[in-house]
Amino acid sequence: MEETIRKFKEHLAKMEAYSHAFGVLNYDSETVMPKGGSEHLGMTYAVLSEEMYKLTTSPDLKAWVKEILAHRDQVDYITRREAEELFEDMERMEKIPMAEYVEYQVVQNAASNAWHTAKVTNDFALFAPHLEKLVGYARKFAGYWNGEKAPYDVLLDTYEKGLTMATLDEFFALLRKELLPVVEAVVQKGPVVDDSFLRARFPLPKQRKLSDRLMAVLTIDRDHCNIGEVEHPFTTNFSKDDVRITTHYHERSFASSMYSVIHEGGHALYELNVGDDIKYSPLGGGASMSIHESQSRFYENIIGRSEAFLTYILPDIQKLGPKALKDVTPHDFYLAVNKSEPSLIRTEADELTYSFHVMIRYELEKQLIGGTLAVKDLPAAWNRLYKEYLGVDVPNDTQGVLQDSHWSGGSFGYFPSYALGSAYGAQMLKVMERDLPVWELVAKGDLKPIVAWLTERIYQYGRLLKPNELILKACEAPFDPRYYVDYLKDKYTRVYGL
Amino acid sequence: MEETIRKFKEHLAKMEAYSHAFGVLNYDSETVMPKGGSEHLGMTYAVLSEEMYKLTTSPDLKAWVKEILAHRDQVDYITRREAEELFEDMERMEKIPMAEYVEYQVVQNAASNAWHTAKVTNDFALFAPHLEKLVGYARKFAGYWNGEKAPYDVLLDTYEKGLTMATLDEFFALLRKELLPVVEAVVQKGPVVDDSFLRARFPLPKQRKLSDRLMAVLTIDRDHCNIGEVEHPFTTNFSKDDVRITTHYHERSFASSMYSVIHEGGHALYELNVGDDIKYSPLGGGASMSIHESQSRFYENIIGRSEAFLTYILPDIQKLGPKALKDVTPHDFYLAVNKSEPSLIRTEADELTYSFHVMIRYELEKQLIGGTLAVKDLPAAWNRLYKEYLGVDVPNDTQGVLQDSHWSGGSFGYFPSYALGSAYGAQMLKVMERDLPVWELVAKGDLKPIVAWLTERIYQYGRLLKPNELILKACEAPFDPRYYVDYLKDKYTRVYGL
Repeated sequence: MEETIRKFKEHLAKMEAYSHAFGVLNYDSETVMPKGGSEHLGMTYAVLSEEMYKLTTSPDLKAWVKEILAHRDQVDYITRREAEELFEDMERMEKIPMAEYVEYQVVQNAASNAWHTAKVTNDFALFAPHLEKLVGYARKFAGYWNGEKAPYDVLLDTYEKGLTMATLDEFFALLRKELLPVVEAVVQKGPVVDDSFLRARFPLPKQRKLSDRLMAVLTIDRDHCNIGEVEHPFTTNFSKDDVRITTHYHERSFASSMYSVIHEGGHALYELNVGDDIKYSPLGGGASMSIHESQSRFYENIIGRSEAFLTYILPDIQKLGPKALKDVTPHDFYLAVNKSEPSLIRTEADELTYSFHVMIRYELEKQLIGGTLAVKDLPAAWNRLYKEYLGVDVPNDTQGVLQDSHWSGGSFGYFPSYALGSAYGAQMLKVMERDLPVWELVAKGDLKPIVAWLTERIYQYGRLLKPNELILKACEAPFDPRYYVDYLKDKYTRVYGL
Repeated sequence: MEETIRKFKEHLAKMEAYSHAFGVLNYDSETVMPKGGSEHLGMTYAVLSEEMYKLTTSPDLKAWVKEILAHRDQVDYITRREAEELFEDMERMEKIPMAEYVEYQVVQNAASNAWHTAKVTNDFALFAPHLEKLVGYARKFAGYWNGEKAPYDVLLDTYEKGLTMATLDEFFALLRKELLPVVEAVVQKGPVVDDSFLRARFPLPKQRKLSDRLMAVLTIDRDHCNIGEVEHPFTTNFSKDDVRITTHYHERSFASSMYSVIHEGGHALYELNVGDDIKYSPLGGGASMSIHESQSRFYENIIGRSEAFLTYILPDIQKLGPKALKDVTPHDFYLAVNKSEPSLIRTEADELTYSFHVMIRYELEKQLIGGTLAVKDLPAAWNRLYKEYLGVDVPNDTQGVLQDSHWSGGSFGYFPSYALGSAYGAQMLKVMERDLPVWELVAKGDLKPIVAWLTERIYQYGRLLKPNELILKACEAPFDPRYYVDYLKDKYTRVYGL
C-alpha cells in the first residue's frame, strides 16, 4: 500500500507539472503573447493535451486509485480525497475519445482567438462558427458523461456538484419575484447622487498605484500574486505560491479597475490561503466556481461597496486621483458606486441588477445546449432578453452577446455560479457578523481577521471538502437564498431611501 | 523511408511542443512570475526536462535519424539537416545521465533566482554556492562530451562550432594590440561633447513610445514581437510567429533602453525572418550565438550609433523627450552616444572598450573552467582585470562580477560570441556597402533593403547552414578580424578627431 501511494503521488506530481505548463501557456497567451503566436500555441496545446490525456487515463493510475479507494479507511484523508477526485476526472476523461479531446483543445484555442477579434471588431459572424463547434462539443461531451440526463444538467454538475436546472429555475424565480419590484422602484426614483466624478480622468500610472494600495488592504502578499493587464480580467493560479490576478484600466472609469482588482483579489485570497499540506496537490485549489465567486463577490460588493470600506479608502483615492474627487464625501462615493441602473455590461452591473444579467445567460445556455436555440439566432435572443428583463436596447454585439469570454472557452454552465456565489456570500456574512465586529474592522481597513475567518472555514480546505460541506462549515446551515434577497432589499432600500 | 520521415517529423513536432512550453515558462519567470513561484517552477522544470530527455534520447528517434543519415542523399535538404542536428543533440544528451540532466535544470533554476537576489542586494556569497555547482556541471558535462579536449574548448564549441581558445587568444591579442593605443588616445583627449542631456529625466511612458517608434523603424511586425520589461534585457522566440524582446527603462538614461531595444530588435529581426519552410522545425532559429550577436550588435552600433541614423531619429526623440534635448544637434547626439570611456558595465559600454569587457570574462571563464580559479576568488580576479585592462575600480559586486545573467544560467563560453559577432558585423558591412546605398537608406530611416539583404544571405537559412557557411554567404570570404579593427579605428579617430 505504501508503494502504491508513493507511485500514485509521483504520478500526481507529473500531472501537476503539465497542468502548470498549460496554465502558464494560457496565462501568457491572454496577457502578453503577440497575437501572431496563436497558431503555434495551438500546435503545442495539441501535443501537451494528448500527454495530459494519457496521464489522466493511464491504466497504472487507475489501478492505484482503485486500490486506494478499496482501502479508503486505511489511508490518510488527503490521499483518499485525491484518489476520489482523480477517479472522477478519470471517468470523465475516459469517456471522451483521445482524438476528440485533443481536437477540442485546438478548437478552444482558435475560438478564444476568434472571440477576441470578433469582440474588438463587433463581428459576431466571425465567432459564430467557432461557437457552434464548442456548443457541439459541450453537448457531445455531456452525452458521453451521462446520456440519460439533460445535457445542460450534466454540464451544471461539472461546475457545482448536484446543481440542476430545477434548482436554478426556482432560485432565479425567487430573485425575479423579490427583486424586480426593487429594480422598478429604483428606476422610478431616479439618480440620488451626481456620480460624474467617477468619470474624471484618472491617469493609468496612478490607477496602478491604487491597485497596489488595494492589494495591500486585501492583505495579499505580492511575492505570491501579481497583476497583469488584459481586456477581460480573470484570476489564475499554478499553486498557492503563484497566483495571478489581472485587471483592465480605463482612464475615465477608475472604479472599473478598482472593483476588478478587489473582485479578482477575492479569488486570489482563496487560492493563497489553501493549506500548505495540499499546496501542490490536485486538491490545492478552490472547491467550485460558486464557492470561488462567493469570495470574489464578497470582497467586491459586500466589503468593497460598503460605506465603511469606502470611508476608509476614499482619502487614498483622493491623494492619487484627479481634482474632481477632492470634495467628494464618503457618503456620496458610497451612493455613486452603488448606483443601480439597468445596463448592458454584466461585469459593470450593480449588485441589484447583476443577477438579471446572469439569468439572461442562464436562459440562453439552457436553450443552446438544449438544442432549442441556434447559434445564428443567439444575438437576437440576447437582445430580446435584455429588453425583457432589464428594459435596455443592445446597440451592438460587442456590448451584447460578445461581451463575456466564457463561451469562447467552452464554458457552458459557469454563469449561474456568479449569482449562486453572490447568494452564498450574503449568507456567510450573517455568521461572520455574529463572530466578528465586521464593520468596525472594515472601517479601519483591517481585513486580516475577516480573511482569517474565511481561511478557517473555507480557504484552508481547498478541494478537500465539497461545496455543500463548505457551505455548512461557513454558514452553519444549508444554502438559503433568502439571505441574499434580504441583503439586497435592505441595501437598496437604504441607498435609494425607498 | 517515407514512413520513417513521417515518424521522425512527428517526433520533432512533439519535441518542439516541449521546448515551446519550456520557453514560455522561462520567459514568464523572467518577466512576470511573482518570485514566490520559483520553487514550484523548479518542480515543473524537473518533470518536463525528464520528458525532454527521454524524447531526445529515444531509441526510436535514434533509429530514424540513423536511417535518414544513411540515405542522406535521397532525402530533402531540410530533413537531412534536421537529422544531422538531432544526431548531435542526441549524442550530447545521451552522454549525460538522465538524473544529472534533470538535477541540472533544477540547479539552474535555483541559481538564476539566487543571482537575481544577489545582484539586487550586492551579496556575491549568496550566489557563490550556486555558481560553484554550475561550474562543476559545466566541467563534468564537457568531460562527458569530449574527455580528451580542454573542457573550455569543448564548451566554446557548443556555442560556435570549431571555436577554440587558440583562435580566441589570437583574436583578442590582435584587438589588444590595435585598440589599446586608441583607448589610451581617447582617454588622453578627454570628452569632446557635453553629454549631460542623456541624463535628463525622460518619463517611462514616453520612453515606451520611443520603443514603439524604434520597432517600427526596424520594420518589426508587432503582431509577432512584443516588448517585455525586465532587469537584464534578452530576446527569446518560440518560433518566427512569436518573438519576445525585453528592455529595462531608466528614467535618467533613455539611451540605455533605446539601445537595448535596437540590440534586442536585431536578434528579433533574425528570428522573424527565418524561412517559412523551417519555421516550426528545430532548424527554425539562429545558427549560433555569434551570428546572432553579429545581428544585434550590427543594428545597435553600426546602424544605431551612426550619424545618419541619429540624424534621422533625433526629431522623434525630441518630440517625446524632455526640454533638455530641444537644442541638441545631430552631431552632438552622435558624439554623445559614441563617447568612449573605460567603464564598469558591459552592456552600457561603448563600442571601442566593449571587447575589453568581453576579454575579461573570457579570461575568467578560461580559468574557472580550467580549474585554476576558485569561485570564491572570482570577485577579486574580476576587479583586478578591470583595473588592468580598463583602469577602473569596481566599487561593488552588483556593478562587477554580478552584473551579467549568463553564468547564472550555466552559460560558460557564450561571452566571446559578443566580440566575435561584433567583428562579423563589421565585415558584413563592407559587402553590404558595395550592394546598397547603406547610409542614404539609413538617413531616410528606410531599413527594409538592409533587412532584406541580411534575410537573403543569413536570416532565411535559420540553422540550415552552419556559421562558417553563413559568413561565406554574407561576407563572400572567411572571417577576418581586420575589418572590425579598421572600423573601430576609423570611427573613433573621427569621433575624437585623433
